[in-house]
Amino acid sequence: MSNSRRRFLQKTSLATAGLGLASNLFSKPFRQPKPVKGKLNIGIIGSGLRGQSHIDLILARKDCRVTCIAEPDQVMLGMTRKIFDKHNEKWPTIYDLGDHDYVELLNKEKIDAVIISTPWKWHVPMAVAAMKAGVYTGLEVSGAISIDECWELVYTHEQTGTPLYFLENVCFRRDVMAVLNMVRKNMFGELIHLECGYQHDLRGVKFNDGVTPYNSGVEFGEKGFSEAKWRTWHSVYRNGDLYPTHGIGPVAQWINLNRGNRMETIVSMASKVRGLHDYVVNHPKGGKNHPNAFVEFSLGDKVTSIIKCAKGETIVLHHDTNLPRPYSLGFRVQGTKGLWMDVNKSLHIEGISPGHSWEDAQPYLDEYDHEVWKTHEQDAEGAGHGGMDWFLMDSFIKCRLEDKPPLFDVYDAASWMAITPLSEASIESGGAPQSFPDFTNGEWRNRR
Amino acid sequence: MSNSRRRFLQKTSLATAGLGLASNLFSKPFRQPKPVKGKLNIGIIGSGLRGQSHIDLILARKDCRVTCIAEPDQVMLGMTRKIFDKHNEKWPTIYDLGDHDYVELLNKEKIDAVIISTPWKWHVPMAVAAMKAGVYTGLEVSGAISIDECWELVYTHEQTGTPLYFLENVCFRRDVMAVLNMVRKNMFGELIHLECGYQHDLRGVKFNDGVTPYNSGVEFGEKGFSEAKWRTWHSVYRNGDLYPTHGIGPVAQWINLNRGNRMETIVSMASKVRGLHDYVVNHPKGGKNHPNAFVEFSLGDKVTSIIKCAKGETIVLHHDTNLPRPYSLGFRVQGTKGLWMDVNKSLHIEGISPGHSWEDAQPYLDEYDHEVWKTHEQDAEGAGHGGMDWFLMDSFIKCRLEDKPPLFDVYDAASWMAITPLSEASIESGGAPQSFPDFTNGEWRNRR
Repeated sequence: MSNSRRRFLQKTSLATAGLGLASNLFSKPFRQPKPVKGKLNIGIIGSGLRGQSHIDLILARKDCRVTCIAEPDQVMLGMTRKIFDKHNEKWPTIYDLGDHDYVELLNKEKIDAVIISTPWKWHVPMAVAAMKAGVYTGLEVSGAISIDECWELVYTHEQTGTPLYFLENVCFRRDVMAVLNMVRKNMFGELIHLECGYQHDLRGVKFNDGVTPYNSGVEFGEKGFSEAKWRTWHSVYRNGDLYPTHGIGPVAQWINLNRGNRMETIVSMASKVRGLHDYVVNHPKGGKNHPNAFVEFSLGDKVTSIIKCAKGETIVLHHDTNLPRPYSLGFRVQGTKGLWMDVNKSLHIEGISPGHSWEDAQPYLDEYDHEVWKTHEQDAEGAGHGGMDWFLMDSFIKCRLEDKPPLFDVYDAASWMAITPLSEASIESGGAPQSFPDFTNGEWRNRR
Repeated sequence: MSNSRRRFLQKTSLATAGLGLASNLFSKPFRQPKPVKGKLNIGIIGSGLRGQSHIDLILARKDCRVTCIAEPDQVMLGMTRKIFDKHNEKWPTIYDLGDHDYVELLNKEKIDAVIISTPWKWHVPMAVAAMKAGVYTGLEVSGAISIDECWELVYTHEQTGTPLYFLENVCFRRDVMAVLNMVRKNMFGELIHLECGYQHDLRGVKFNDGVTPYNSGVEFGEKGFSEAKWRTWHSVYRNGDLYPTHGIGPVAQWINLNRGNRMETIVSMASKVRGLHDYVVNHPKGGKNHPNAFVEFSLGDKVTSIIKCAKGETIVLHHDTNLPRPYSLGFRVQGTKGLWMDVNKSLHIEGISPGHSWEDAQPYLDEYDHEVWKTHEQDAEGAGHGGMDWFLMDSFIKCRLEDKPPLFDVYDAASWMAITPLSEASIESGGAPQSFPDFTNGEWRNRR
């Protein structure tokens, strides 16, 4: 089925895909990204809170600048302006004539790269338009809306030749990279089982007062601000692992997904649905008569998936965003010689650790600290999410400047994002296993 | 399907079930357990290492004694004798004429209770025979060999009226009982998601030198000793969650399984198979030319299951016995107000714990320490598995003396044991969901 889908798309995607939003791009032959002279000119599509964080990192660098921004929200543009002022940088060309003005940006601007940080439903159409415009594309993470979307990313890349960098920051987390170092040195032996996920109490993100982004109220949608404006709808209408990439990204590095290995099948189950309703009802600004107390949320408070890989590893994936809890990505890396878990910050290595006992992981994480962290610790200081955002941006920019392939490319994006619709399908069918399409058309065996 | 199976068994089980091993019991009408006068007379079926631990606890008590033992292994009987000597107790009647001599014990002895601690394949036939003999039956834990076995336990109980106590000791673990206390006081709110399992490096149990039970060599089967004699075969021939009850037993208490709730479906996946082979090859007494290096093991090193319950909770169940790792049952109890995890010995309770942060669980476990632990801490000192075995034996004996229903009864035994064959079926079918039979025939809604 994945093959016939592939053939179907190869025949039709140029004719139909993206016609709605970016059809004017089709009248030209595809442009290829050209070598960069001097500073990297970056366009920003979406300067909401996440886009602003990227802009702040870019403006602090000497090898790049922001020359244009597409953002329809004047409040967000006002906040963005303050970042330019802080860095004493010139206010760039703004495309703010509605949701589709990003197409104009892609058509008119001479840019070397674009970063897309927008609500999830815009990710694929915008990335497709950017690749068709021949602009090296940085795409913020999300799950896909459908498997078709994932194929569209892949085919657009294959037809245009434009590289896509999938901006998964957790792959650069310091412990994640130290563990990657340990995995490559065979400290855990042959890897057998992995765990990961996104366990983050987002109730104060999914709801706010329409003005302050976090922990300020029980509004969402039209009355919400920032993520509460759009992210919460996914919890209303969908039941699946809505945000799989912070977990699967690091796992993909550890077990070489799409580079000698791939995810084959997934099963998912979802718990009952209580957390978001309770939040609205129990919040001082909510109550049982608040309109949002009558919303029927679909997203199970805890969604759990198991993935089986071609090389025989199992992966447990947690999604847990509606309940009170400490933040945890729940990593576990287990092989024939031992395991590491991040929830107890411990590991056990056969022959080194005392028998049947945990050891504090920190001395090992220090010893196997990744070279890039040792070198750039100072540069990363103060950057978002414990510094890892600096490494992500540095890699995104360097790959373009040095004409190197993205660390996390369109095949990673497609397969990681596919977890969302596949988990929805599994839950919908009572836990039935779902097959991952092979987005690489067999090339996962050869890719390094 | 489970209903037609139920009708089929109702018609036929009296005529056929257990005919092979215990047919002579059928010539008599079923006896009912009679009220106990004076000390409880207990028969022991299986005095291997686990049976000996039970005997040691029984002989230390004043309200019971061991009057007969069925055990074919003279080495084990020799070790058992030392326990009687230690307690200055009279050596009881011994039934050691082969594997089936336990039937004679059940026919001849006037006992008030029997404890079955034998290799797993004997659990159901022996428990069926004991219930048919009208002897209050204590059955050591295991997974079932088949779903039919689970039904056989249930029907034999329903036809004979003999109570069965399923001897799950972890239900009495101190933290498990304190958390039960907290659950009942609604500290975690409505429960949403549970995790549990059996994560125990059993390589040194599955293999030994034929003389010393633990960590002494790479032999199993005929050349092994104690559990290595029989338990290891399950890893050779089976791929599933082979030992689910230490995890599911406590979870069952927390979410009232078979008492207002029940497990409905399960999906399972197994990783590749490396650990046991590697153990043989890398052991100083093994090597790549050792005969056991050529054994093809079936059991995935890590087996993971997700269970969905009637009341909407999800349960993740871990089985992980072939790799180097610290012991962990991996408990997680998560509700609308917070969660506890045992791997990091931490909890988070909304409104009490600092926002988005873990707290040390110990002060809470102390505060909510269960009444029975407070009362009997001294009695339990030195008993197996951190004292919990004392509470299990105390409960088993008291339920008989006071004519109370077992805390964990035949329906618990059947449904918990069913996880093993259901997980095997799910793994065999690529992760397809399997339905739990309703062993209570709908009574789970009314049982308390």
